[in-house]
Amino acid sequence: MLNPKKNKRFSFIPTYKTVQEIITDQNLATLGDAYTNLIYSLYLSTKTREPTGAKANSHILSKALKQARLRRFLPSRTDRHKQADAAEALLVYAWLQGLTAIKENVNMMIKYKDATEAFSSLLSDAKKKLDL
Amino acid sequence: MLNPKKNKRFSFIPTYKTVQEIITDQNLATLGDAYTNLIYSLYLSTKTREPTGAKANSHILSKALKQARLRRFLPSRTDRHKQADAAEALLVYAWLQGLTAIKENVNMMIKYKDATEAFSSLLSDAKKKLDL
Repeated sequence: MLNPKKNKRFSFIPTYKTVQEIITDQNLATLGDAYTNLIYSLYLSTKTREPTGAKANSHILSKALKQARLRRFLPSRTDRHKQADAAEALLVYAWLQGLTAIKENVNMMIKYKDATEAFSSLLSDAKKKLDL
Repeated sequence: MLNPKKNKRFSFIPTYKTVQEIITDQNLATLGDAYTNLIYSLYLSTKTREPTGAKANSHILSKALKQARLRRFLPSRTDRHKQADAAEALLVYAWLQGLTAIKENVNMMIKYKDATEAFSSLLSDAKKKLDL
């Protein structure tokens, strides 16, 4: 298990003690959007063997959050977009804390044909590594 | 000098022999858009000390391309958006080839208050490392 404090990639990142704090941080979600689009684009590029840019949509990400059994950390009325934000926040948080790496993330994703399953496996992995 | 072939981050990336080939590859530019948005977001996050997501606009990127003296590799009628695409393609190409790293890119950018200068320095660095 890596020590998040020691491996932080950037100094601006807060250290949270609960999953809820991470996945409801809207600022983190906006940065997470950029991170998620890059890994999704790299996943598609690797699958199609051609450089490709794409946005991971909220349908895929909210479904992935459910599959990874992380939906339960959000209030029941949370809409699909906020569920996608939660997924993006968690993925970038794990990366910023130095617990995951982009290439490793993409290599994990390409084991799955389906993007939802690919993101679900990343989310489960991030949750596990955060150890919260 | 790193050997690009040995350090490629992903197998899908073509190896180009000229700057023109890189900066006019539209597929590379779409992936470069995702990459550029992430490093720009990390630059802003570091400056404001708060996680922030943002898109690097074509004004900033086309100006940076000129400042880095790379505009001359494009035909004279190339519009601003294609100039920005060129910058994005070059930045992601250098990263995909393993010649640059995200943290190193962001650390270089934060030396500059101005985003155009920050991107200009990255582009010059990428061009130098590509050795084309």
